[in-house]
Amino acid sequence: METTKTAKEMSRRQFLTTVGKLGGGAAVFSVMGTLGLLSPETLKAADFVPPDMNELSMSKRGGKKIIILGAGIAGLTAAYELGQAGYDCTILEARARSGGRIWSVRRGTTVAEIGASKQVARFDDGLYLNAGPMRIPQFHVTMEYIRKFGIPIEPFNNVNDHAYYYNEDVGELSGQKIRKREAKADVRGYVSELMAKAVSQQALDLPLTAEEKEKLVAYLRTEGGLDADLFYKGTSRGGYKDEPGARLDAGVVRDPFSMKAIINSGFGNYLSSEYGYDQQMMMFHPVGGIDAIPNAFEKRLKGKIQYHAEVVEIKQSDSGVTVFFKHLGTGETRKIEGEYCICTIPLPVLKSIKADFSPGMKQAIDSIGYASAGKIGLQFKRRFWEEDEQIYGGNTLTNMDISSIYYPPTGYMQKKGVLLGYYAFGANADKLGAMTFREREAHAVNQGAKIHPQYHKEFEASFSVDWKRIKYNLGGWVSYSGDQRQTVYPTLCKPDRRVYLAGEHISYITAWMAGGIESARAVVTDIHQRVMKE
Amino acid sequence: METTKTAKEMSRRQFLTTVGKLGGGAAVFSVMGTLGLLSPETLKAADFVPPDMNELSMSKRGGKKIIILGAGIAGLTAAYELGQAGYDCTILEARARSGGRIWSVRRGTTVAEIGASKQVARFDDGLYLNAGPMRIPQFHVTMEYIRKFGIPIEPFNNVNDHAYYYNEDVGELSGQKIRKREAKADVRGYVSELMAKAVSQQALDLPLTAEEKEKLVAYLRTEGGLDADLFYKGTSRGGYKDEPGARLDAGVVRDPFSMKAIINSGFGNYLSSEYGYDQQMMMFHPVGGIDAIPNAFEKRLKGKIQYHAEVVEIKQSDSGVTVFFKHLGTGETRKIEGEYCICTIPLPVLKSIKADFSPGMKQAIDSIGYASAGKIGLQFKRRFWEEDEQIYGGNTLTNMDISSIYYPPTGYMQKKGVLLGYYAFGANADKLGAMTFREREAHAVNQGAKIHPQYHKEFEASFSVDWKRIKYNLGGWVSYSGDQRQTVYPTLCKPDRRVYLAGEHISYITAWMAGGIESARAVVTDIHQRVMKE
Repeated sequence: METTKTAKEMSRRQFLTTVGKLGGGAAVFSVMGTLGLLSPETLKAADFVPPDMNELSMSKRGGKKIIILGAGIAGLTAAYELGQAGYDCTILEARARSGGRIWSVRRGTTVAEIGASKQVARFDDGLYLNAGPMRIPQFHVTMEYIRKFGIPIEPFNNVNDHAYYYNEDVGELSGQKIRKREAKADVRGYVSELMAKAVSQQALDLPLTAEEKEKLVAYLRTEGGLDADLFYKGTSRGGYKDEPGARLDAGVVRDPFSMKAIINSGFGNYLSSEYGYDQQMMMFHPVGGIDAIPNAFEKRLKGKIQYHAEVVEIKQSDSGVTVFFKHLGTGETRKIEGEYCICTIPLPVLKSIKADFSPGMKQAIDSIGYASAGKIGLQFKRRFWEEDEQIYGGNTLTNMDISSIYYPPTGYMQKKGVLLGYYAFGANADKLGAMTFREREAHAVNQGAKIHPQYHKEFEASFSVDWKRIKYNLGGWVSYSGDQRQTVYPTLCKPDRRVYLAGEHISYITAWMAGGIESARAVVTDIHQRVMKE
Repeated sequence: METTKTAKEMSRRQFLTTVGKLGGGAAVFSVMGTLGLLSPETLKAADFVPPDMNELSMSKRGGKKIIILGAGIAGLTAAYELGQAGYDCTILEARARSGGRIWSVRRGTTVAEIGASKQVARFDDGLYLNAGPMRIPQFHVTMEYIRKFGIPIEPFNNVNDHAYYYNEDVGELSGQKIRKREAKADVRGYVSELMAKAVSQQALDLPLTAEEKEKLVAYLRTEGGLDADLFYKGTSRGGYKDEPGARLDAGVVRDPFSMKAIINSGFGNYLSSEYGYDQQMMMFHPVGGIDAIPNAFEKRLKGKIQYHAEVVEIKQSDSGVTVFFKHLGTGETRKIEGEYCICTIPLPVLKSIKADFSPGMKQAIDSIGYASAGKIGLQFKRRFWEEDEQIYGGNTLTNMDISSIYYPPTGYMQKKGVLLGYYAFGANADKLGAMTFREREAHAVNQGAKIHPQYHKEFEASFSVDWKRIKYNLGGWVSYSGDQRQTVYPTLCKPDRRVYLAGEHISYITAWMAGGIESARAVVTDIHQRVMKE
């Protein structure tokens, strides 16, 4: 390939080589970023330099016992990274499993929500519900561990124009299931038409040259699928009422909804749900269940996780931390001592644990609210969404309580499937959460059946989770309100003597695994630097 | 579930059951469609009723020999469906493989384009280039055979906001690679801002009530990511210049480009490339290569495909068809006789084959043009697009000759990968096609390296295809011009005595496997009905 290299490239590579000789790999990495060869996301990930085993004598590291509270993604990351550098870590985990909210519900999984009877998952073998996180943006740090651990992944179908919008009480289109492409084509069509005409008729005072206005109109024509006279009259983008086929079967494009109908439907407001930075395609998930991620960490942390250990008190001295925990098997209270403690326990749980935190930290912990979030998995005898409606993954959005239906982004064309019958937040989640398991199931099936009448015939089993009612979590994810990020949050981010908080709540990537990982890495770096200084 | 069934549902089901008793499964299917339980796509697929083996006596069917010309998807479908009904089919195929344009180029694959020397694929084992079709809309009939034959599939990442737009000679943003999300956020932001202000300031004469105008403005606010005063000032949808992270690292949202810059860039015109009916997510492809589709047919057509058989003449009589073909192994000319012939040979090839077609058919065949299309697969030592730039599948679009770069939608996080270095049509395809293999490779690498400087260091091997120069194809897909669909096309759709044409060119789903399948099914139905009438 020497012959195809440009002079510019040559000099850039020579430059990098020179930098490498002077400053090592990290320097090359940094320069590559400056030259635009690496994205901000890559550079972000590179911010973290794992503690180097060679930086400390073995005696110094070996002498440092780190107690980690919680085997969620933050605790696992901290134990893994510190362990790689030779630190002696122990994770205390109340449950019999690692992962925390990263939880794949499978046949036999049980849960007793607070104040409710035990629920047992009756899904067929191989089928599962990812009750917590279920998708990973391709640029999140989470992908680094997937790569490092060789976890098989597949796309998570977060966008599917063949799925539906379905709204009630929205005028003409109430109670109609509309393929997303129909609403998208019509909304973009009408708005582009209005705009294109306004621009071309000089109705708007725009800071653009005539040539730029022409370009803007040309864009609006492509964006809206407008005809030569800038009218939107429907296009195949919205689908057909009669599909095209062989020979003379040219197909018949569907008739667009009226502009009034589409505006009143509210469907347009759903479009931007796909625009969010962390919702844009492509997204991924582990093959076979999201728990492949904690499982991969667990495999590398053999003997370092104490399960069934419910933390009851955190006590600090000038030289260390003592954590008391109840062993849920024997019922006895035990204690463990260490130099430092990393506490990843969600704040609504932590606030009820006895701890000698400073008053400022205590108050900060007490003040933070968590988001409501609930999911239900519905197993069906038949993947009718694929067989009858050609919907392979993606989600249907609705203004009913169930909010959304997610079609399984895996196991295509298999016989059965577990569909996410609702993924609800806020008030909808609270309403559904207040129901019994049976009531939630009935509600999910009845509302879902308005979109998919096949529900009634094909439904087999459900499992629902209301995160506010799940012991050891008590919420979906942190939800800072008002000016809390400026007032109490900074206190949470600082160590309280020898205790460091970590988890998605100690990040600006809340509700994502990446937030837990990034916050754990920050704590790992801090503890290591502190130990090195000692 | 009896308790959760609504009265409405009950009566619907009772109705269906009654219909089923009266009219059988097909009647239920048709009624389900009328009730909106099935999509137009499903109903379309159901249009085809495969010939029933029991409709004809064995002697009648066995006596009907069908000669099929070409083992592409149309020929394979026809042979499979007719074979299921007991017809005696033979496919003549000039190549040593089935599939036609459905072609996965792997290590050792060779091709000699017309007027060029032989090209040998040097890809590593397991890596491949899908030189022809590479993706399947989830609602295409192709999915039926994938389901029937149990072909493993995975998503084809047709949309990826983390990939780039890159244009030259477009003003301020010339020669900059822009994440798609940046352009999308800015285009939608500015246009929504202009529109929202025009609506709210009553600058436009709209046939909407005040309440509807409010809804329109609310939509524009969400669509554009506008602030409370309807200004677009950039949002996280477009990404960050400094990613958010742990603790106090809130991140810094990127600065939007200026409205003028983004309008002049032409990036806005790329957005609608994702809106096309057959380009919308989700799309799929077989795991391990698109040739899994013809291979699955081939397995079910053992002994029915005569390879190395180059058709040299088609001759009809009142009672049958005789096809003469040159066996490319022995060089001898052989003949085969049958009652009917299904000819799937692409028209630019067919027009040079001696045939006693009617003058109208001959003229029609001669008159049709085919599209130019070319691809190059580039194998790289390292999947730098994933490692350095977090791009997992999807495509980058550019106004350079290469037109697009497609990142492999498979094998994520493996060491190496074959990336589609260009997929070009029309004039760009012609320009690239006119080059030697080496020149194409150099051009693809040099232009691609403007977007991915890593190209120069990581490139290993290429394989390129220009479909106009591929023997037995001589074009990408049919391209009817002007009023040809009204004038000559109907002639192609009718049998010429005992010869029926099939292929994507005999459909309104041109350039897609589904077009070949649908057209084959139409011919199968016609021949079967004709035989039954005899």
